[in-house]
Amino acid sequence: MTMDADLASAMLDGAALVEDALDALMPLHEGDERRLIEAMRYSTLGGGKRMRGFLVMETAKLFMVNATCAARVAASVEMLHAYSLIHDDLPAMDDDDLRRGKPSCHKAFDEATAILAGDALQTRAFEVLAEPDTHSDPEVRCELVMALGAASGARGMAGGQMIDMVSSDRELSAHLVTRLQALKTGRLIQYSAEAGAILGRAPTAQRHLLAAYGRDLGAAFQIADDILDAEGSDASLGKTAGKDAAQGKATMVAVLGIERARVQAEHLAQQAALHLEMFGPRADRLRALAAFTVARRS
Amino acid sequence: MTMDADLASAMLDGAALVEDALDALMPLHEGDERRLIEAMRYSTLGGGKRMRGFLVMETAKLFMVNATCAARVAASVEMLHAYSLIHDDLPAMDDDDLRRGKPSCHKAFDEATAILAGDALQTRAFEVLAEPDTHSDPEVRCELVMALGAASGARGMAGGQMIDMVSSDRELSAHLVTRLQALKTGRLIQYSAEAGAILGRAPTAQRHLLAAYGRDLGAAFQIADDILDAEGSDASLGKTAGKDAAQGKATMVAVLGIERARVQAEHLAQQAALHLEMFGPRADRLRALAAFTVARRS
Repeated sequence: MTMDADLASAMLDGAALVEDALDALMPLHEGDERRLIEAMRYSTLGGGKRMRGFLVMETAKLFMVNATCAARVAASVEMLHAYSLIHDDLPAMDDDDLRRGKPSCHKAFDEATAILAGDALQTRAFEVLAEPDTHSDPEVRCELVMALGAASGARGMAGGQMIDMVSSDRELSAHLVTRLQALKTGRLIQYSAEAGAILGRAPTAQRHLLAAYGRDLGAAFQIADDILDAEGSDASLGKTAGKDAAQGKATMVAVLGIERARVQAEHLAQQAALHLEMFGPRADRLRALAAFTVARRS
Repeated sequence: MTMDADLASAMLDGAALVEDALDALMPLHEGDERRLIEAMRYSTLGGGKRMRGFLVMETAKLFMVNATCAARVAASVEMLHAYSLIHDDLPAMDDDDLRRGKPSCHKAFDEATAILAGDALQTRAFEVLAEPDTHSDPEVRCELVMALGAASGARGMAGGQMIDMVSSDRELSAHLVTRLQALKTGRLIQYSAEAGAILGRAPTAQRHLLAAYGRDLGAAFQIADDILDAEGSDASLGKTAGKDAAQGKATMVAVLGIERARVQAEHLAQQAALHLEMFGPRADRLRALAAFTVARRS
């Protein structure tokens, strides 16, 4: 499937804004700590689909949020995501040498620098959210910090990674895999879709609808990712393919097989779009994103 | 030197409040992510001098801040500190098997769990600061997040750790070591002393005085720590002694020798106390802490 032309150009525009924000938020300076900032920039700039950042930008538009503010929140979630990839790729974790088509951080630098770069990216992600430039209302900034914390900590992404670690080579169930993925990747995608509503001080009901959209989108995205891992090549993915099966990872492909997993992903993507009904045509791009998520080839 | 009796009992009381807050802020629950929370609790509960937490509690008292709120901020900085120790102890970093008299996190659990536990402790530290229970004013909570971010990120603690890594076995100067230690340990101690002023919405001048106290106290503390490492035993320290010299670490002892380093630490501790003048006898405990910091034997 070719990407919807409007979605493609909006994703490129969004990615450019997020890239500029990331660049501005992590200035290189002199001093012996320069290498740390180089590693942080190496792992965040110039790569990735920026789906999480795009979700922030697009949901923020629904509430007429200033694009400069939204880009800071988008950059923050991309920093948080990049930190998780750096640490996931470490030898003690998934031990992956390739990320976004280039050497992973611990290969390009070294293991200690990679640990530290992930740490400092997480720090910066939270710091940026709390800064006055992100929103004039400190209550909104605190909500963003709390929501990102809940999405990425022990009850979210890190908890999901722990479940993933203890689940390798264990007997798998669809229920276990669903919960694992909801935490490991789903919660951060859900946060990204919710962030626009937080920034826009949206009514609770609308915030919940966007959260539900993000939850289903995240689930669909992860299954599609697992299918790509099972079918893809290193070159098309920009990361090592076929690793899930080799590592006995708990994925929906392992539980359901590729065909049933594909049906499940498509079902979730349609369900994601259904939550957007009340937003009318202004949410068409978010609908297109849901459709593209399960149809993409990389 | 025996610790001042009033200081000793206040530190015990403060540590108990911080311990209770840590326990409440990281509840164990069922589920496959339980092991992650166990590792987080293992590395934060039941150990350490809690100097950073004590600084928050004591400086908060100067501004009549509610002790429950202060204990949350104290617990947050202890989580941040614990995360940095877990990651510093990893094989790729300082490779230390002993911490606070027990196996370090990656020895008690495993390397991947330790990386993740450090990550999730950092997340929780920021999340707790942003929660309404920490302070009724969201502006204050944002200030706490920003100050902790600045103290612990690439321009603070993590930057200092990077400098430490690139400086091993390099020619050392007192200037380099001072900057390294100001970032690596100084900034978080400074933050801890400033946090009470932030919580108490203190006038800027008072906040700056407490920051200056924390800065000098932190520098004195680190030199004292380096002297203990050079002179101490594993048993008295609760961590591996003599590692700095063995690893060619940049310490003030290496640059100045033990005797001159001791004079420098004492000078800094006295200087720290001088910043407290305007607070009168209410700051006597903070003065006693400065004196104790350079006189302690563990």
